[in-house]
Amino acid sequence: VEQQEDTYLINEFDGMHSADISSVMEGLNAEECKYILELLNPEVGANVISEIDEDTRKNFLELFTPQELAKYMDQTDSDDAADILNEFPVKSKEEVLASMNNHEKVQYIIDLLHYEEDCAGGLMAKELVKANINWNVKQCIDEVRRQGRDVDKLYTVYVVDDYNVLLGRISMKKLLMATDDIKVSDLYEPQIAKVYSYQDEEEVADIMQHYDLEVIPVINVQGRLIGRITIDDVVDVITEQAEKDQQAMSGLSEDVEETDSFWQMAKARLPWLIVGMSGGLLGANFLGGFEAELSRIPAMAFFIPLITATGGNVGIQSSTIVVQTLASGGFQGSVWNRYLRVFIVAILNGLTLASLVYGFNMVFSDNHELAIVVSVALFSVIMIASFMGTITPIILNKFGINPALASGPFITTCNDLIGLGVYFMVAKLMLH
Amino acid sequence: VEQQEDTYLINEFDGMHSADISSVMEGLNAEECKYILELLNPEVGANVISEIDEDTRKNFLELFTPQELAKYMDQTDSDDAADILNEFPVKSKEEVLASMNNHEKVQYIIDLLHYEEDCAGGLMAKELVKANINWNVKQCIDEVRRQGRDVDKLYTVYVVDDYNVLLGRISMKKLLMATDDIKVSDLYEPQIAKVYSYQDEEEVADIMQHYDLEVIPVINVQGRLIGRITIDDVVDVITEQAEKDQQAMSGLSEDVEETDSFWQMAKARLPWLIVGMSGGLLGANFLGGFEAELSRIPAMAFFIPLITATGGNVGIQSSTIVVQTLASGGFQGSVWNRYLRVFIVAILNGLTLASLVYGFNMVFSDNHELAIVVSVALFSVIMIASFMGTITPIILNKFGINPALASGPFITTCNDLIGLGVYFMVAKLMLH
Repeated sequence: VEQQEDTYLINEFDGMHSADISSVMEGLNAEECKYILELLNPEVGANVISEIDEDTRKNFLELFTPQELAKYMDQTDSDDAADILNEFPVKSKEEVLASMNNHEKVQYIIDLLHYEEDCAGGLMAKELVKANINWNVKQCIDEVRRQGRDVDKLYTVYVVDDYNVLLGRISMKKLLMATDDIKVSDLYEPQIAKVYSYQDEEEVADIMQHYDLEVIPVINVQGRLIGRITIDDVVDVITEQAEKDQQAMSGLSEDVEETDSFWQMAKARLPWLIVGMSGGLLGANFLGGFEAELSRIPAMAFFIPLITATGGNVGIQSSTIVVQTLASGGFQGSVWNRYLRVFIVAILNGLTLASLVYGFNMVFSDNHELAIVVSVALFSVIMIASFMGTITPIILNKFGINPALASGPFITTCNDLIGLGVYFMVAKLMLH
Repeated sequence: VEQQEDTYLINEFDGMHSADISSVMEGLNAEECKYILELLNPEVGANVISEIDEDTRKNFLELFTPQELAKYMDQTDSDDAADILNEFPVKSKEEVLASMNNHEKVQYIIDLLHYEEDCAGGLMAKELVKANINWNVKQCIDEVRRQGRDVDKLYTVYVVDDYNVLLGRISMKKLLMATDDIKVSDLYEPQIAKVYSYQDEEEVADIMQHYDLEVIPVINVQGRLIGRITIDDVVDVITEQAEKDQQAMSGLSEDVEETDSFWQMAKARLPWLIVGMSGGLLGANFLGGFEAELSRIPAMAFFIPLITATGGNVGIQSSTIVVQTLASGGFQGSVWNRYLRVFIVAILNGLTLASLVYGFNMVFSDNHELAIVVSVALFSVIMIASFMGTITPIILNKFGINPALASGPFITTCNDLIGLGVYFMVAKLMLH
């Protein structure tokens, strides 16, 4: 495809959505990306740049001069432009900003560069349409026509007072259905959801999900309207959070992608593997203390994997249920009621599994004493793992740590050790 | 709060968002919910009913007569109404529909009840505004005024031909900015994303996320416009999918909630626990074949937890990376290249961990032979678990099974068994 067949490619890309063009480009190398981008008109090119995968973007944007980049940034929404420029070293960032023609946008971007990426201020775009509370509908529609050209997704007109303090909103539908001489103050909805610029992006996602909003205004501490966040950015936040939870559950310590270097990939996996391994070595040391018992009854060793695996599985199940309850807005009802429920479910599961194992051992083994020991240990391990799995995410959440870590390797390792401990303690008590 | 203080409560709820009222109601019993709902005006009440948690809803809606419910359903969006009525037995469903006054809505709901809940048809709402391609802007705006009262979130006007075949769309912004005599055919965007009614809800979510859409039209096989899906319903799909993945990873077999009965909760956990336990018993049987070796060198048992835990951790890490790559749109580049990368990362991790363990054993133990056996086994287990963790989700995905299951208990159990096998095979080969 890359034989520089300009006209063919231009025809091909014409009418293609920028999101599809960027998908195509993610499979190509940096020079090819640059070549394609130059075939597109700057507006489409700007969309492609904001939609493309971060790693691909980094690679090919380096090939452009600041002047060329400025041409695209002039056409990009302020929130995307700020995110893209944030990936650059300070010097090129300044050069790009200095070369841009759209001075209003430059001001927007500079404002946005102040905010942390993971707060409402870092998610918001500056482009919005606002109307003064004292206007009538005609003035308001004229303003939409004037400001609206810049605003990509226009759902709503925000109503502010003379000091830019946010008072409410008017939906496009209401505006279209109203006659020209109605006053804004008679038409607007005064009670609307809003977020402060310093609020965490996950809080923003929760609020927008709770109220089913497609856009939310952002205000500063003085209540002044400074931007808006659209749902598509929030969908990305939600997806990212789900990925982070999965990574926490599986013991990946950084955001890894298939395209990272070998060493990065290995490094992301090693920390939790080493934690797990240290647990295994501790376990080995602990078992070392039972060498005499093990050489007398080697069959005791047979059930080690059974005990540790069941403890791990029970712990992960319990913690995942708690994590999901926390994520969907926390608990209703009393805490003690909860613990009682967990306790009863653990007893049900513990009794079921312990009797299954006991039955199995009665049939296939002739060591009745050991069969009892294994079942008692299994029951105890299930009880303890349920309890640990339930309280760990609650405690992590209290300390502001991602509770999904509680379904991860650290807890599995702890459960392994506890399981071993319980098993051999029970054995020691019952076999002597 | 529930001393029936009508006026106090009416004041309190007045101006509260329906999503907040439903949050309050989720903490109350069925009678209290009914009582509150009757204090609200029917429109707010209808919103509350669609936003409230499914379990709470089921409980208190049973207290209403079909006639009372019909009053609320008249005010509810067709997609929510269909979902709610789907929770009812057939007889009450019919009774409610028969008692409704809004006959257009009844028709909508009956249409929607035909679709499976998890396809585009089950997600869509029938309320939308459409304009004929032959109209001008004035006719179009009049139509928005007429149809628009029913449509809650109005972002766009769909353009259809005389046979209701979808041709394109006009954004509300364009409509507001255009003059009355422009023709629809000159204004509309012809190339727009759309979905067929039979497409899976996760496909819909992917498409809307890919193109950053807030609403997407739904067509039937003939290309006729039959509904629209808004982003807020898709956000719920995304959140649900993330929860399902987490549950698959942690071995919960049904959608469990804290509020379910004890037996339901136990039942959701038992299947995978039993799988894990059967694995443990198989492991015990396998180890039984090495009773002689174990009683000769009991220290061999010490490292069982280390080997199985590391194999499990490595497998889960590998599969989670693949699952996330699959979820974010699949792989770029060649398959062999991928396997080579996985292979190299596994070697890096394997060498690191094996040498750490070897170093540890050289310092703390005097059995050099066993130290070598453990390290060789650990290295082999890491290689195999990486490979298994990488291919399992790909295979599951090919067969249309949720690939997140590959990070779940079944695979952990397999890895445990493979780990044990490798460990004792290596031991047998090297210690004789």
